[in-house]
Amino acid sequence: MKKAVVLLSGGIDSATSLYYAKDKGYTSEALIFDYGQRHKKEILFAERLAKLNSIKYLIIKIDLPWARSSLTRKSLKVPKKRKLYQKSIPNTYVSGRNIIFLSYAFSYAQSRRIDNVIIGAHMQDYSGYPDCRNNFLRSFQNSCRMGISNNKIKLLAPLINMNKTDILKMALKLGVPLKSTWSCYCPSPGPCGNCDSCRYRAKAFNNLGLKDPAF
Amino acid sequence: MKKAVVLLSGGIDSATSLYYAKDKGYTSEALIFDYGQRHKKEILFAERLAKLNSIKYLIIKIDLPWARSSLTRKSLKVPKKRKLYQKSIPNTYVSGRNIIFLSYAFSYAQSRRIDNVIIGAHMQDYSGYPDCRNNFLRSFQNSCRMGISNNKIKLLAPLINMNKTDILKMALKLGVPLKSTWSCYCPSPGPCGNCDSCRYRAKAFNNLGLKDPAF
Repeated sequence: MKKAVVLLSGGIDSATSLYYAKDKGYTSEALIFDYGQRHKKEILFAERLAKLNSIKYLIIKIDLPWARSSLTRKSLKVPKKRKLYQKSIPNTYVSGRNIIFLSYAFSYAQSRRIDNVIIGAHMQDYSGYPDCRNNFLRSFQNSCRMGISNNKIKLLAPLINMNKTDILKMALKLGVPLKSTWSCYCPSPGPCGNCDSCRYRAKAFNNLGLKDPAF
Repeated sequence: MKKAVVLLSGGIDSATSLYYAKDKGYTSEALIFDYGQRHKKEILFAERLAKLNSIKYLIIKIDLPWARSSLTRKSLKVPKKRKLYQKSIPNTYVSGRNIIFLSYAFSYAQSRRIDNVIIGAHMQDYSGYPDCRNNFLRSFQNSCRMGISNNKIKLLAPLINMNKTDILKMALKLGVPLKSTWSCYCPSPGPCGNCDSCRYRAKAFNNLGLKDPAF
């Protein structure tokens, strides 16, 4: 039986990774991270997705009081209507977040004898987030293999070369319940529509001529 | 001003790393990890060392409920009088522990603009613990540099090629208050004298013809 640890955030990308894993015959277990993000709502959506799929999941609490990110600090503003596809790192970046998430995932995978770790990182993110780039992910896999003495564990990033529109197409094909995903970076009751994450999502729905069921 | 993040556990190795950093002119900040180790006492010793040196420190709580280690699980016994210098991984190994610690350290270093991370890993450990080996540490440094887009951060392991006796010599030279270090793996009120950690320590003191002030 093929098993995978899926990093689940509650957004479209990680939800699509989860359904990809299901489609490919993996039995998944999900790790959900509570890293002090102000948009705590995504944790509820991640949990709901895990429950919908009747998979084992864990919520891991991570304390990053030093992170100077608008996702975790009230004193910083999440940028609104920022120019998309920029190469500069936005203030939503949480330093080393994927490094930390993946470290936990490798520890978990080794302890539970699971040979695959799946992350929903993709090319649209890596214009801004260095820990979403393919060269980082490959290098990190190899380092972790050394550090846990297990060459079998694979780090899979099935969406890495896709943009949000491609991912949305894939999500639709795989039957991802898009209503049960949450993308917005803001702690507002409904999606703000103005942050990068809302806007990439809206653009993808727009490109496919579809209405977002989450609105 | 040279700055360093020092991983501080309260044992001789990390204490010596801290005093090494001081000797080399680094201003240090310490990260102390509470990962559910049953020998919680080491956290108090780490704190005491940080306070003695008037350095900034943080205790980071890490939850690893999946770890099958005798350091974290009551149901597993810390091996007593195990043959030393074995190549097999002992049950005190906490899967991916240094991977996780170092991930936090790189995130912290980047956020606080610190260019050095110092870890007390050394060759005697790496017979058993894969995440204490030099090839892992080098590889991990390079992965993290990619993941946080900063090629300046160095991972230093000043003790990596030393055994415990060499480290003890260095500790004495640097004035490490050995009475204020804790090595024992057991949650006993005093050092048990029988676990690997106590025995490597005792052997080092013995090799130098010295009495351990912690007893």
